[in-house]
Amino acid sequence: MKIKGVEYTKEKLASIVDYAVLDPDTTESKIKEVCQLAKKYGFKGVHPNPYWASLVADELEGTGIETGLVVSFPFGANPTTFKVHEAKELVKILNKRPGCIDMVTNIGRLKDKEYDLYTNDIAEVVKVGHEAGIEVKAILEVAMLTDDEVKAACECAVKAGVDFVKTSTGRGGNPTIKHVKIMRSSVPSNVGVKFSGYGNYNPAQLTIMALAAGATRLGTRRAPEIIDEIEAYFKDLVVE
Amino acid sequence: MKIKGVEYTKEKLASIVDYAVLDPDTTESKIKEVCQLAKKYGFKGVHPNPYWASLVADELEGTGIETGLVVSFPFGANPTTFKVHEAKELVKILNKRPGCIDMVTNIGRLKDKEYDLYTNDIAEVVKVGHEAGIEVKAILEVAMLTDDEVKAACECAVKAGVDFVKTSTGRGGNPTIKHVKIMRSSVPSNVGVKFSGYGNYNPAQLTIMALAAGATRLGTRRAPEIIDEIEAYFKDLVVE
Repeated sequence: MKIKGVEYTKEKLASIVDYAVLDPDTTESKIKEVCQLAKKYGFKGVHPNPYWASLVADELEGTGIETGLVVSFPFGANPTTFKVHEAKELVKILNKRPGCIDMVTNIGRLKDKEYDLYTNDIAEVVKVGHEAGIEVKAILEVAMLTDDEVKAACECAVKAGVDFVKTSTGRGGNPTIKHVKIMRSSVPSNVGVKFSGYGNYNPAQLTIMALAAGATRLGTRRAPEIIDEIEAYFKDLVVE
Repeated sequence: MKIKGVEYTKEKLASIVDYAVLDPDTTESKIKEVCQLAKKYGFKGVHPNPYWASLVADELEGTGIETGLVVSFPFGANPTTFKVHEAKELVKILNKRPGCIDMVTNIGRLKDKEYDLYTNDIAEVVKVGHEAGIEVKAILEVAMLTDDEVKAACECAVKAGVDFVKTSTGRGGNPTIKHVKIMRSSVPSNVGVKFSGYGNYNPAQLTIMALAAGATRLGTRRAPEIIDEIEAYFKDLVVE
């Protein structure tokens, strides 16, 4: 598959997919199964709820696959001090193994146009991540935002020093391709765009459209489906 | 309205209703509006996300209305240490004003039948609440559980010393009246049952059924509707 000049082999595609396992009723055996699949496919990371971060990091030990540390997930409506505490504790659990932080921003404060508070909240978590040498993504929850708010959120996130802006938690509505386009054009090229919140849409087709619109990372509980379906039906696809 | 021998005046009913304002995109003006309505109706409490706990406690100062401190909301899939930290910080914010803790239990660990871990997680938060002189509710997220799991969760919560078992976060499916009956029969009479997660059902009718099934506290974002509709249409209702 070739999209906008980029060749996606099965391995290349898997290397930009984060496998999410964030349902609140996730069991230990489910976590282990997801980690096994992540190793089989060669995904970029596995993103569990904080309770399971330790087990995931253990299961992925030595593979180079990231343990995704979600902060203030999925609402983000916590004081900044809570987010910093969570991030610091999760970094300790990670204990120098490969990982990243995906933090949920304060959506209410964005809507209040309290941009300094909104930016600072992100920046404080970025600081913790960067001190630990790992990347930080800011989850904007775009389905709850107007287009202008998406743009403003991106600008704040960039100012806060994030490595990625990310569309959704998967719990606050689904993003559209329009959102990806707005995000891509609102952040510089060295900041990534993570598309997540696939909902019940076809994951392969949505992936193709998201990549064409400028997404550089994908996140979903249906990660293996993306790879299998693109391999089966879209191997020869070229999007100019 | 009289249900199972209990007379519910408008005031009596309002006094067992917690007004939830937990959407992640809640703004400052929405918080203030909810607090105003809570004072007008005389609700038991206002339950915001942690970011807004400070403002809610300030807005309700001197009224006797509780500020509901939600812990690990809405997933509960955090390490116990995170929950204890959150609870302690929220108790500080409360600063001896009227309040309570509604904590989300570790649903995955219940499903793993790791009852000691499940119970201890609740007990640690109960300890923080009781040391601060406030009640603690354990949110079970019953729509994700089998009937046997609901019963087991209640037994663990009682062992952990909770003041209430609570059906739902409102983000993991809606509870049924069957759930209320199982919960009521699985906890002693000095432990309350909070019905929450009304979804899009008619709040007045659901309230009447929940009370008849043994609920002793109600929680919903649609709190004023309950009072208005029961006042308008069910004032003379008697359920034996």
